[in-house]
Amino acid sequence: MKKEDQRLRYAILANDIVIFAIRDGTLNVLLVKVKKASFRGLWAVPGGLVRPSETVDTCARRYLRQVVASGDVFLEQLYTFGKVDRDPQGRVVSVTYYALIPDAERILDCSDDYAAVAWFPVDRLPELAYDHDEVVQLAVDRLRSKTTYSNIIFSLLDREFTLSDLQRAYEIVLNRKLDKRNFRKKILSLNQLVKTGKKTTGKAHRPADLYRFRLRRYATIQIL
Amino acid sequence: MKKEDQRLRYAILANDIVIFAIRDGTLNVLLVKVKKASFRGLWAVPGGLVRPSETVDTCARRYLRQVVASGDVFLEQLYTFGKVDRDPQGRVVSVTYYALIPDAERILDCSDDYAAVAWFPVDRLPELAYDHDEVVQLAVDRLRSKTTYSNIIFSLLDREFTLSDLQRAYEIVLNRKLDKRNFRKKILSLNQLVKTGKKTTGKAHRPADLYRFRLRRYATIQIL
Repeated sequence: MKKEDQRLRYAILANDIVIFAIRDGTLNVLLVKVKKASFRGLWAVPGGLVRPSETVDTCARRYLRQVVASGDVFLEQLYTFGKVDRDPQGRVVSVTYYALIPDAERILDCSDDYAAVAWFPVDRLPELAYDHDEVVQLAVDRLRSKTTYSNIIFSLLDREFTLSDLQRAYEIVLNRKLDKRNFRKKILSLNQLVKTGKKTTGKAHRPADLYRFRLRRYATIQIL
Repeated sequence: MKKEDQRLRYAILANDIVIFAIRDGTLNVLLVKVKKASFRGLWAVPGGLVRPSETVDTCARRYLRQVVASGDVFLEQLYTFGKVDRDPQGRVVSVTYYALIPDAERILDCSDDYAAVAWFPVDRLPELAYDHDEVVQLAVDRLRSKTTYSNIIFSLLDREFTLSDLQRAYEIVLNRKLDKRNFRKKILSLNQLVKTGKKTTGKAHRPADLYRFRLRRYATIQIL
């Protein structure tokens, strides 16, 4: 085999992370402005090359912690994107992940790595570098789908919330209205929620019960 | 960067395919005996390196067609395994897939590529090369999980089947008994099945209605 051919058998391995949060009543994704390479100045999801010494899972957590204060958030492998020409620099295969963080989670200063960092609603994204439009779309689809058969939504919520907060979170992720009475009946019947004994305060609304999830660990369950 | 370091930034990209079928009342996986490299003589799932000119998805279908006569079967990306030392030959990252085929599907002669090919029940596997025990276990978990919230089981069945065939397929994949009456009531209520108008023949049992799936395309649906 010629040297040229051998080089081509190798692919550079990258990780890209789609980070979701609910902000201002919409589902948002965290984007970074690319500093280097062919896509300089365009927005992309955070990520970069995998180091020789780390697994792809370890690497994903490293890129997550570059931008998010607490690494202790939901993070799952999404899909591996291996189109031949997805990066003009060479054969870069990206193992993508998605992460869910509560709105309160602090975003770090990562100006060493990226030219800018900002949240964007998933239905109003700017032009994205690489095939990151596909990556984000697949992550949105996966999140929507998992929301219907698991407790995944807890990762987007604060530790304590009202039933209205929870319904709103479902509506935002699923992008459709839910009937309040049916929703409450169903969600309470699942034995997933625990009353904290506390109530909301504030003048605008009547005090509402605060709940928390019995389990803050991913589990499959028929929700809606 | 030194030449050595540069080499280490590259990973060889492989595809491995877990192929399932229901055979003799158990869930089976197709294994091949490795001909070359460090694991010669051990069993593994079929697969190999990704060519520079093909996407990982195209490559997966190529390896599938090496062993299965019809390429027109359920094939889905499973997970990307990127542990640093999973292959003693170097940094090989495997993008794994799983495929489901009906028992009737013909297995090809692939003695050019593998020393042997054979079916094994998933609960009685031989020692496997690489991290393929992990790969097969994850594929089994994914299949079980998807079976509860999708119509995926159609890919393991012949085009026409009785309700008993269908129930047995569910029981084999899920590895638990189902109540016949509840199963029939639930499965018929889902509007997924169509009576073909034909019946089974044979002396051992009373003739039973033959059904087919209305849709032979993957769809999410609450089954059990």
